[in-house]
Parts: sequence; C-alpha cells; structure tokens
Amino acid sequence: MSIIVLGTVALDSVKTPFGARKELLGGSAAHFSMSARLFTKVDLVAIVGKDFPQEHISFLRHKGLDLSALIIDQGKTFRWEGEYSGDLNTALTLNTELGVLSVFKPCISEEQCRIKNIFLANVDPDIQKHLLLKMRKPALVGLDSMNYWINNKRQELIRLLKHIDIYVANDQEARALSGENNIIKAAKALRGYGAKMVLIKKGENGVLFYSDKFIFSLPAYPVEKVIDPTGAGDTFAGGFMGYLAKVNKISCLTLKKALAYGTVAASFNIEDFGLNMTSRLKPQDLGKRLIKFKDCFSF
Amino acid sequence: MSIIVLGTVALDSVKTPFGARKELLGGSAAHFSMSARLFTKVDLVAIVGKDFPQEHISFLRHKGLDLSALIIDQGKTFRWEGEYSGDLNTALTLNTELGVLSVFKPCISEEQCRIKNIFLANVDPDIQKHLLLKMRKPALVGLDSMNYWINNKRQELIRLLKHIDIYVANDQEARALSGENNIIKAAKALRGYGAKMVLIKKGENGVLFYSDKFIFSLPAYPVEKVIDPTGAGDTFAGGFMGYLAKVNKISCLTLKKALAYGTVAASFNIEDFGLNMTSRLKPQDLGKRLIKFKDCFSF
Repeated sequence: MSIIVLGTVALDSVKTPFGARKELLGGSAAHFSMSARLFTKVDLVAIVGKDFPQEHISFLRHKGLDLSALIIDQGKTFRWEGEYSGDLNTALTLNTELGVLSVFKPCISEEQCRIKNIFLANVDPDIQKHLLLKMRKPALVGLDSMNYWINNKRQELIRLLKHIDIYVANDQEARALSGENNIIKAAKALRGYGAKMVLIKKGENGVLFYSDKFIFSLPAYPVEKVIDPTGAGDTFAGGFMGYLAKVNKISCLTLKKALAYGTVAASFNIEDFGLNMTSRLKPQDLGKRLIKFKDCFSF
Repeated sequence: MSIIVLGTVALDSVKTPFGARKELLGGSAAHFSMSARLFTKVDLVAIVGKDFPQEHISFLRHKGLDLSALIIDQGKTFRWEGEYSGDLNTALTLNTELGVLSVFKPCISEEQCRIKNIFLANVDPDIQKHLLLKMRKPALVGLDSMNYWINNKRQELIRLLKHIDIYVANDQEARALSGENNIIKAAKALRGYGAKMVLIKKGENGVLFYSDKFIFSLPAYPVEKVIDPTGAGDTFAGGFMGYLAKVNKISCLTLKKALAYGTVAASFNIEDFGLNMTSRLKPQDLGKRLIKFKDCFSF
C-alpha cells in the first residue's frame, strides 16, 4: 500500500567537521521519501518557491516519487542553515528562512485523500491537522514534530496526538513534551496524550518503541564515520513507515522489523551529506545491512 | 571456573530523587561480586577499616564470597558521598574519604594466585598492576577505571592496558582516554592501546562491544523507575565476567550472552538503593529477565 507524506522540501546549508555544503536538497519530506520509496509508492505533499532548482524536481521524480501535490509557489523555498560539531549529535541552527512555508496549505487530489498510510513530518501542527482532516480512510497515521512547535504550539500538537497512531520524537522532544526525564516514563506520558504508539529516536543510542502491548529497544547501527546527520530522523521514519505500509500489518514482528529497517536506512543517511547516500540506495542494500545489523545483537 | 576481583569495598552515602541513604555497603568490588556470584565462586580482594560494620562482613560471607583476601586495617573505611538528579545518568560526587584505601597493597594466597579469571575493578592503576603481577595463570583479565585515574595516572593506565583482555569503560571515560568523540572510533583507539576487547557502557543507552573480530551493540533493559544507579557499571561487569568465567569460552555467542547477562544484572541494581536488589537475586531471576530482554529486540 502506498504512503503519503506531508513535510518540508528545503534547501539545506550545512557545516560538519567533514566539510560544508550549500543549498543541498533536503527537508523532512524529502528525507522521509528517500527511504520510504524503497518499500512502496510515495506521494509527497510539500511546497517550494519559484527559486527551487528544476534539477531537484527532476531528481525527486526520477526517484519515483509522486509529485502531484508538490506546490511551486511565488516566493522563496524554505532554507535551513546549521552546523554540527563534536560528536555530531546535536545541530546548531544558524539560520531559518521560512519563505513559502509560511503560506503553505496542502492541496491533494481526490485519489490521494484515500491513501491509508499517512506521515505528517515536521511542519506546523496546524498544517499537519489541515492535511489529516482531508484524509478519508486513515489506517496508519504517523507524526513527527520538533522543539519549536512543542514550545510554541504545544496545545495544538497535544490535541493532534489523539488522532495519531505513531508519534515519532527524538529523546529531547519526548522529554520536553512529556516533562519526564526517564525515557520510558516520557513514552508512557506521550501515550497518555493519545498517540497509540510512541517511537523515541536517540540518535547514536538507538530507538525505543512504546505501546500498551510492547516495549522494544534497538541499538543504532554502528557507524564510524558520521559525515552529516541531517535528516537521519526523517530517514528513520521513512524506513519504519515504508516497511509497515508495504507489509500492511501491525504485529510484534512487523514493528520490530520496521524499527530495524528504519535504523539501517538512517545509518546510510549519516554516511554522506544530504541525500547523497540514501538516494543511491536500492532495497537490497537495506536488506544486506539489516543482516549485519541483526548480527550486532542477536544471540 | 572461579573469578578474583580487586576493587573497593566502601560505605556509600547517596541522595537521589527517590530518597537518601547513609553509609550503605558499596564499592566497585562489592557491586561486581554481587552479580558475579550468581555464576561462579568469587574471591574478593579489597581493604576496609576497623570501623567497617561486622554485619557487612557477615553479609558478604553469607552471599558466598571468599573473603580471605579482604584486609581489615587500622584506619577508616573508604567512603563516597554522591547525589543524582534529573535523569539520574550522572553522579555528582560530594565527598570522598580514601581512608585505608591510601595504604592498600593487595595480598592474596598461593591458591588465589592461580585463579585464571581476574577483574581489576576501579582502584589506583598501580594497585591494579600490583595484583596483576601476582597472578600466575591469567586467562581472562578485565579492567575498569574512572576519570580520576584517566586524568591523574594516564600513562600508568595506558601501560596496563597492554596486559588486559577486556577494558570496561563508560562512554565519558572512553572519550576522555581516547580523545575521540565517535564511540566506535574511541573503542578502536582503546583497542590500539593494547586491550584485546573494549566494552563501552552507556548507561540507559546500552553497551557497545568492540574487538578486531566483532562489534556488538545492545540496548539497555528498559527500567521505568530508576532508584539509585550507583554501582550499575560494576554490576554489569560482574554479570559479564561472571558468565564468561562460568562458560570458560570466548566466542561470538558467549560474548553476546555475557553482555546480555551484564545488562539484566545492572537493570536489577538500579531498581533499589545499594546492593538491596542484587543481593537478593538468584540465578533464575537473571534467566527470567534475560528472556524478557531478548524479546525487546530479537526478531
């Protein structure tokens, strides 16, 4: 079954200890799509400005994404500029230019309204809600957010969580939204807000999955040379949701496998700048690394 | 096969968000022994002062430990006072009184010199070396240290690592001693110092194992109510080394199982103050939790 993802398509400028890149194709929806496409058809819902390079549009189309809901609007494309230092675990945002993102109203076709797997990647919770209300047959709805919305649209975000199957957050966001330090307590509190399942991403420390029925915990895939972690969380979500959309079944086994696919997808993402690595992946690359990954902890 | 552990036996005063306790029985060798004893005979090498309560001696003996190399010296027992707040991941040391530890020279019997499994828990690297030189047939030697020695006896510690099979460190220590931020690079650098295997403990984020042949990574066992993390690392090491001493074989499978036993042992330790929880454990308690733990990530 296909998946529809709402989020940003951006031009990212990034500096890490391994170099600097200007105006790379990025954004939450772009990173998500690049791993989700390895499992299923992906419909991308986003907005860019007139300044958005045509080659990036061709590139995304060439990767098999359905771009019929990608709006090209008057104005400038959303830009993010950030820097990583030390252990590359935390990005320092240097600059954000919202551009067309400030007028974004998702617009999808009748056919797209019937897609059952939905991922609301990081944008304003009001925009996430706007899209969700259009969806006629939601079967599996995932949502990601960020500290900015947790601080500035807390109530809107919490209200939205009641309609969400899987809330995806990093550990800082989970602690900030729940007010709990212990990560299990934080997950439980987020479950209390209404999200049926809670997935907490911990970067190099792996991932925790919480639901009433199961608690799972996976380490990260060991990567020695982290070049650029931008988009790793979205890439993770794309692998996770993409796999679940493909198998069209929620069970103990499929959830664990989805977490593992998310993990290996993210491990590729951080090995090069932007989408350089994930855009070149084929499904069998994920499969091969999944076997190595399992070998890191299975006994 | 039995195991000999060198380290501290201490009186710990600790304050956590869940309460405060004064002069609990603690120390690296005590915590290590409490989990290692679940797998094999443990010979404890440590020093305490005349003020050390007789009931603690009886308690340790009652737990099956061989105390023939526990020195009771003139002077005061080593005392540590610390506090945890927030996520309970980092202890703030409020006070340390070395007492008899400052004159400690390990003294073991002829028979003890022939024990093949050796764990040098956290004490002065010169004392660790002193014991290691006495050992006639070392087959598996583990070593733990701490930031204080990394800062103050760096060269002594590095020289010692050449004679060590398994260097056990937490992530901060691994980064401090190696100078590397990335945890895999840190492990590789520590391997370069001579330790054949490197085990990096990451608290609530699990553990990484590095050797030339294998890299393993396990998450932590999910614990919702962390009462007191004091000694969790030593408890981990006790489960890990204890299991390896019992099976008397180093392989991919036994190393992974040892890591898993260390993990579940540590998960019990943090659920109550001091040795309260681990001293009550029976081998089957570890076995039961190991099955639950495996279920958190195996697929």
